[in-house]
Amino acid sequence: METIVEDTHAGVVSPELVVDALFACRKTAAIRAAIELDLFTHIGDGKTAAGLASATSASERGVRILCDYLVVHGFLTKEGEQYRMTPSTRMFLDRNSPAFMGSAVEFTAAPEVLNNFLRDPAAVVRNGGSAGLANMSADNPVWLKFARGMGSFTGLSAKILADEISGWPSPPKKVLDIAAGPGLFGIEIAKAFPSTEIVAVDWGAVLELSRQNAEKSGVADRYRTIAGSAFDVDWGAGYDLVLLPNFLHHFDLPTCAELLRKITASLAADGRIVAVDFVPNEDGVSPPFPAAFSWEMLASTPAGQAYRQSELTEMAKLAGLAGVTVKPMPPTPASIILFE
Amino acid sequence: METIVEDTHAGVVSPELVVDALFACRKTAAIRAAIELDLFTHIGDGKTAAGLASATSASERGVRILCDYLVVHGFLTKEGEQYRMTPSTRMFLDRNSPAFMGSAVEFTAAPEVLNNFLRDPAAVVRNGGSAGLANMSADNPVWLKFARGMGSFTGLSAKILADEISGWPSPPKKVLDIAAGPGLFGIEIAKAFPSTEIVAVDWGAVLELSRQNAEKSGVADRYRTIAGSAFDVDWGAGYDLVLLPNFLHHFDLPTCAELLRKITASLAADGRIVAVDFVPNEDGVSPPFPAAFSWEMLASTPAGQAYRQSELTEMAKLAGLAGVTVKPMPPTPASIILFE
Repeated sequence: METIVEDTHAGVVSPELVVDALFACRKTAAIRAAIELDLFTHIGDGKTAAGLASATSASERGVRILCDYLVVHGFLTKEGEQYRMTPSTRMFLDRNSPAFMGSAVEFTAAPEVLNNFLRDPAAVVRNGGSAGLANMSADNPVWLKFARGMGSFTGLSAKILADEISGWPSPPKKVLDIAAGPGLFGIEIAKAFPSTEIVAVDWGAVLELSRQNAEKSGVADRYRTIAGSAFDVDWGAGYDLVLLPNFLHHFDLPTCAELLRKITASLAADGRIVAVDFVPNEDGVSPPFPAAFSWEMLASTPAGQAYRQSELTEMAKLAGLAGVTVKPMPPTPASIILFE
Repeated sequence: METIVEDTHAGVVSPELVVDALFACRKTAAIRAAIELDLFTHIGDGKTAAGLASATSASERGVRILCDYLVVHGFLTKEGEQYRMTPSTRMFLDRNSPAFMGSAVEFTAAPEVLNNFLRDPAAVVRNGGSAGLANMSADNPVWLKFARGMGSFTGLSAKILADEISGWPSPPKKVLDIAAGPGLFGIEIAKAFPSTEIVAVDWGAVLELSRQNAEKSGVADRYRTIAGSAFDVDWGAGYDLVLLPNFLHHFDLPTCAELLRKITASLAADGRIVAVDFVPNEDGVSPPFPAAFSWEMLASTPAGQAYRQSELTEMAKLAGLAGVTVKPMPPTPASIILFE
C-alpha cells in the first residue's frame, strides 16, 4: 500500500506496516498454495500462467492471480507474461534445491498451529500463555507434521553443531538426543564420528521419521530410539553428550532446570549438555528471529519462551550447573548453548 | 531472520521473505491482540510491560512478549523497559487518532474471512475462485463486521470522491449508493451538497450502520435506504449519480456489465456512474496494493478480481457505455472510475 503522508514530528508516516499486518495471513496462504502446487519447482527457467496452469492442473486465472501476488511480494519476477524465480526463491522454494524450506509450511501453516494464534490472540496475552499444543496426545499427527516441517529449518544448524563438536578434544561415544524430531542433530554427529552411538527420545510416531532419516544417512546400526516424554522415560546413563535441540523454549524456566538435573544424573564423567535454541539479546528485541520467537511460544505453549543468556545462566544454576556459554550459529538464527 | 548467504548469480540470497511468509499469520495475530487489548492507545507517551499489563488487565509476561514482538516488527520502540509508539503507529493504531485503522482487523482477521484463505489455498488456485463469502446469507453477521471494518479504510477515499464531484459543473441532486456498507461515500456527498438526497442499497443489517453514520453526520433527513441485493431490488429511477464503491471487484466482468446496464436504465439525463475501486496497471503487478487485491478476491469470491483499465473499458462497452476514465486517489490505493 503506497499511502504516505507527512508527519510533523518524525518524517514519513505510513500505514504500510499496519496494512501488511492486517493482511499478513494472505501471504501465508499464498506461499502455502504455491508450495502445495509446487509452483516454484514447475517454473524452472520461466513459464507463463497458461504453462504453469497446465503443469499444476490448476485454473489459469487462479495461477495468474497467485503469481501476480507473488511478484508483488518479491517471490517471483514478471517480464511480459513470463514468470521467473528470484535467486532466493530458487534456493529455498524449488524442491530440487538442497536448501528447500517449503516443507516447513506443513507445520507453520497447519490448522492446529494457526488456530493457536488466530482463535483468540488477545486471550493468549491476557493469560500469558496458551494450552497450545501441550494438550495434544503423543500420537496426534501434529507432532509428525512438526518433525517433518522443522527438518527443513534445522538441517544447517545440525551440521554446524556437528562441526563444533568435531573440535572437542575427544569425540562423544554415547549421545542422547532429546526430543529428536526428524533426528538431524544426532544423525549429523553419528555421521561425523563413525563409532558414536545415538539414543533418540521422542514420541513414537516421530521416532519412525528419525529412524528413516538415520537409515538414509547410513547410521541406523548405531541409532536406538526410546519412545516417550523426556520428563518421564528412563534413558539409562553413561552419556558423553546430551542434546537438547530446540526443546527448552517449550517450558518454563524451573521445568527446564528440573530436566537439566535429570540429564546431569545420567552423564558420564566429563559428559556435556548442549542445547540448540534461539537466544535473544538481553534487550529482548534483537536479533529479529530469536526475539520474535517468544511470541511463537506464548501462543503455542503454556509457559515457554526464547531464553536470554541471563535466563539460561539462572536455569543452569537452578540445576546445580556452573553456567552457560552461548555461541551463535550463523547463518542460522539459532545458537549453541553449552552448559558448564 | 538474519540468515544471509551469497549466491554466485545475483548477489545476496536470503530466506528472509520465505520465513516472513511462513510465519506471517503470527503478525496478524499479534496486531489483532494488540488492537483488541487497545495496547497502543494505553501506551500513550510510553509505558512498561508492567504498566500496560495493569492498564489492559493482562498478564505482564504476555504483554512483554507481545510488545517485544511488536518492537521487532517496527510497531513500537523500546528504551530500557519503556515501550513507545512510532509516529505511524500513533497515527493509525491509537484509538484517539482520527486516522485510526484498527477496527479493520475485525474484518480482515475475522475467522470466516481467514478461513477462505487458510482452509485450502491450493484449492482456491486450482478452482480459480472460492465460494468465499458469496454463500453467506444477507443476515450473516459477517457483513456487519465487513462494513464496520472497512469504514476505517474508506473514510479518506470517500472525502476525496466528494471533492472530485464538487468540481463538476452541477451538483447531483439524487444519488444512489450501491452496496453502501458503512455509507461513507454517499454521506460525504450529502455533506458536500446540502440539498442532495442519498438512496443507499445494501443488506438490511448493514444499512442500520449506514443510517447511524448518516445521523452522526447530520444528513439523516436526506438519507433513504433500500434493503436487498443490488442485482435484484428495484431502486427506482432519475439518479444524477450512481456510486459503486468497492463493489465491482466481487464479480466477474459480464456480471459487472449486466449491473452497469441496470444502472444505466435508472439514470437521469446526464446522470453519471462512478465506481471507486483498486485498479492495477496493465502489467498486473503494480501498484502493490491494487495488484495484490486480486488474490484477496480469488479467495473470497467465486469470480471477482481487481480490474485493470483495459478490462473496465471492456466492461463499459459490454454495458453499452463508451468507456472509462480512471483517476488515482492518492494517498489511498484506490482510484475513481468514471463511466462515460
